[in-house]
Amino acid sequence: MRELDLLQHVYAANASLPTGVTIPPGDDMGAVRAPSGQVLITVDQVAQGVHVDLATASLEQVGRKAITRNLSDVAAMAAQPMAAVVAASLPRDFDTPRVNRLFDAMRQTAGAFACPLVGGDISIWDGPLILTVTILAEPAGIEPVRRSGSQAGDAIYVTGALGGSLETVDGYTHHLDFTPRLALARRLAGDPATRPHAMIDLSDGLARDLAHLCDASGLRAEVLAQQLPLSRGALQAAQRTGQPAWRHAVGDGEDYELLFTASPDREMPASIEGVPITRIGTMLPAGEPPMVGLRLPDGSMVDLTPLGWEHRA
Amino acid sequence: MRELDLLQHVYAANASLPTGVTIPPGDDMGAVRAPSGQVLITVDQVAQGVHVDLATASLEQVGRKAITRNLSDVAAMAAQPMAAVVAASLPRDFDTPRVNRLFDAMRQTAGAFACPLVGGDISIWDGPLILTVTILAEPAGIEPVRRSGSQAGDAIYVTGALGGSLETVDGYTHHLDFTPRLALARRLAGDPATRPHAMIDLSDGLARDLAHLCDASGLRAEVLAQQLPLSRGALQAAQRTGQPAWRHAVGDGEDYELLFTASPDREMPASIEGVPITRIGTMLPAGEPPMVGLRLPDGSMVDLTPLGWEHRA
Repeated sequence: MRELDLLQHVYAANASLPTGVTIPPGDDMGAVRAPSGQVLITVDQVAQGVHVDLATASLEQVGRKAITRNLSDVAAMAAQPMAAVVAASLPRDFDTPRVNRLFDAMRQTAGAFACPLVGGDISIWDGPLILTVTILAEPAGIEPVRRSGSQAGDAIYVTGALGGSLETVDGYTHHLDFTPRLALARRLAGDPATRPHAMIDLSDGLARDLAHLCDASGLRAEVLAQQLPLSRGALQAAQRTGQPAWRHAVGDGEDYELLFTASPDREMPASIEGVPITRIGTMLPAGEPPMVGLRLPDGSMVDLTPLGWEHRA
Repeated sequence: MRELDLLQHVYAANASLPTGVTIPPGDDMGAVRAPSGQVLITVDQVAQGVHVDLATASLEQVGRKAITRNLSDVAAMAAQPMAAVVAASLPRDFDTPRVNRLFDAMRQTAGAFACPLVGGDISIWDGPLILTVTILAEPAGIEPVRRSGSQAGDAIYVTGALGGSLETVDGYTHHLDFTPRLALARRLAGDPATRPHAMIDLSDGLARDLAHLCDASGLRAEVLAQQLPLSRGALQAAQRTGQPAWRHAVGDGEDYELLFTASPDREMPASIEGVPITRIGTMLPAGEPPMVGLRLPDGSMVDLTPLGWEHRA
């Protein structure tokens, strides 16, 4: 198994590159046109034992997630993907057919979102599988939506349904099989009637990611438990753990949905591109803790600030 | 040790970002201006046990190499760095002070080459240390130099001296401490009198990288052993291994020098920016093997095609 052969397989399969690719893979650097005059960039890793488990996930799911996890960040800015590069460190027992399955999944997923692979680096080592994907994007006519910019009184919205992303329900495992909300984000941010003040994608769980939005704008947030859109995964997880389903909706990570705020006087559609949009709460002026509070049906308030999901030692 | 705290340390230290950074680190994506309308991208990994050994290299050297290894690819295109993003997977025994030393070294090295860190991703896992760096660059007035474009009859040149990059000579270990040839490449490619037809950086060893140049232009190459600029590391390695020094100069990897071809009637300066430039051979029309041949002082020819350094299983 040689690095060069592996990369050539990837590049050969990359038959018809978009015209925006000015230097195709195989040189010291790839290049793409950046007509907007501004380029956005994000990097994420998918590591065996941290973000995926090869004992239960297929190589196709792992390759797909390595791309979609990054595309969710692109969606969070309402940007348009341009190109991706992949760095892979492969365990020694990964034979060529398995590597090709993995890279085919990455290439096909990236291609499906108009985000061609334009470069890569492969190492073979004694460690576990790790895929690092960097994605370039451009504004393409829509000013990127930042994490900051929320105003007191803003309504808080989420797309889709939350929680239980690790659960498998009817063969669907959200953290592997989710669709990044690229088209929805472009529609939302490109229309002055619905453009968010601030937006983030939900990767660390609603509690933590909403805290990021609060922090970026110097505000607090109150979420109504009854309004939280619960995924089937959240309901299944709640049955398994005995915890309330809202706990999974606010604390579980890897929803890869969009969390955004907008003026409360805007008419937000109930869904865009077939994905539900749900108002879950309100941004409040800075003041007494909690920074992120959850109002339960009995009127009591739960401090969500300590919750949320993070890799840590 | 929390990911967020670690990243915030990096970003806080990143005090004065260049004005080209339009979205600073800490959002879902970073962004930079791309006034050239074209953006170049490359990714490389530095993994414990493959590219570095923490038993002998300092954290400062490891952090530095993670950046310079990529900048060498930027030099190979004669491009100008714009911004970098870093993904790190850290072993659980990496405490915060060590992580900060590592990231400080990356940030300072990147900053020294006007290539600010604009984003990152940190995971903590059970595997060895791995740093994946993606660098963005722009042409900035100089058309990127590709691997293809050599013509039969072109003179072949290298910068610096070759071989023995793993050796430590008087406290200098080339594969860790080298300087990427960014300024030299810009000077070379920006001047019509010296602009290379094709260029690559020497990461896999002269034999293999010259084969890449031959392959990209459908040519052969002949190198004169007597002309090879031997590094002190190559001489030390030769003493240790008993092999001829030229064997180290053509076969050892990680020189991170530039290899380029240009019309033989051009007056190439003996050095640029204080770095020697040496003519080592000639590009030849396609024909009988070897694709890459080395002429020894006794007139005999060695086929270099099977040589060269590559990570493999």
